[in-house]
Amino acid sequence: MGRWQPDAQVRLQEAALALYGERGYEETTVAEIAERAGLTKRTFFRYFTDKREVLFRGSELLEQQMVAAIEAAPASASALGLIGAALDAAAIRFEEVREFAGPRHRIIASSHELQERELIKAASLAAAMAGALRARGLGDTTAALAARTGTTIMHVAFEQWVEDPDQTPFQRIARDVLAQLREIASTG
Amino acid sequence: MGRWQPDAQVRLQEAALALYGERGYEETTVAEIAERAGLTKRTFFRYFTDKREVLFRGSELLEQQMVAAIEAAPASASALGLIGAALDAAAIRFEEVREFAGPRHRIIASSHELQERELIKAASLAAAMAGALRARGLGDTTAALAARTGTTIMHVAFEQWVEDPDQTPFQRIARDVLAQLREIASTG
Repeated sequence: MGRWQPDAQVRLQEAALALYGERGYEETTVAEIAERAGLTKRTFFRYFTDKREVLFRGSELLEQQMVAAIEAAPASASALGLIGAALDAAAIRFEEVREFAGPRHRIIASSHELQERELIKAASLAAAMAGALRARGLGDTTAALAARTGTTIMHVAFEQWVEDPDQTPFQRIARDVLAQLREIASTG
Repeated sequence: MGRWQPDAQVRLQEAALALYGERGYEETTVAEIAERAGLTKRTFFRYFTDKREVLFRGSELLEQQMVAAIEAAPASASALGLIGAALDAAAIRFEEVREFAGPRHRIIASSHELQERELIKAASLAAAMAGALRARGLGDTTAALAARTGTTIMHVAFEQWVEDPDQTPFQRIARDVLAQLREIASTG
């Protein structure tokens, strides 16, 4: 029980997503998640601060990886080129967690509290990307516009990807959405 | 006391903004707002459900006016043309409340709870505009992209407008920001 269990975190995440889907997020307790995973509450709290964190663990890492991609892009990259690099980094991350992404997405859509949390994470991501873009020499307005355009593309592409029966890679969908945005912006 | 006081709402808003600025939002009570306005708590609750609503009253109206502008735009309007029409409607509204906009903006920036509320309002506005754009025949992806681009432009333009020492009209700033977005999207 006190031992480090390498798969405990994943088992807890799977158990939590299953229970949130079956009973609803509000109705599920940490004790029930631990029991379903065959672990104790104490083990749960070794990995997560609360039942909400099970859904949002990993968003800091996503933000760091997207910012790192902006920092590492070639000097010649345009504002949207830098955003494209950040979206490519997000694509790698999303494909790794594809299995969880659909259930997680539906659970978040079911709860106002979780949607608020998701909005805050998106605002934090936009602010972090804007900072990275300014550090690359972009002006304040350009950096703010490009960063928020990045979260817009990510959101719209994610909604398509997560429900796509053909399991099209996120990267391809995101590039299509970026192309559509360029099209919209060049018209009229 | 029981009488309808035509200026009571404005007096309460002015008193609330002054107190939030002096003491902080969290520390201010409804009783103090009413006292500063020379009115009773009962009168306060005739106009507002709570002290938060003093800051967000009017955002439904803004959303309605932006949606109405999309509905009323010429049939030939492009996706960003429709967003431009919505931003022109927002400009009229913002100029009417310019006096309150700066203090309100700083108070919201001071509180996580209020920032969350602001994010939810922006998401609601994007969803309402996307619905209006779909009703004009735009596809789901184009409507979602254009609507979120609209809230991005509004946000970035608002941040400049609200702190602008020259009091440049919101409409002019929003058009400049829209032009910058077109520039970003057409490069690289």
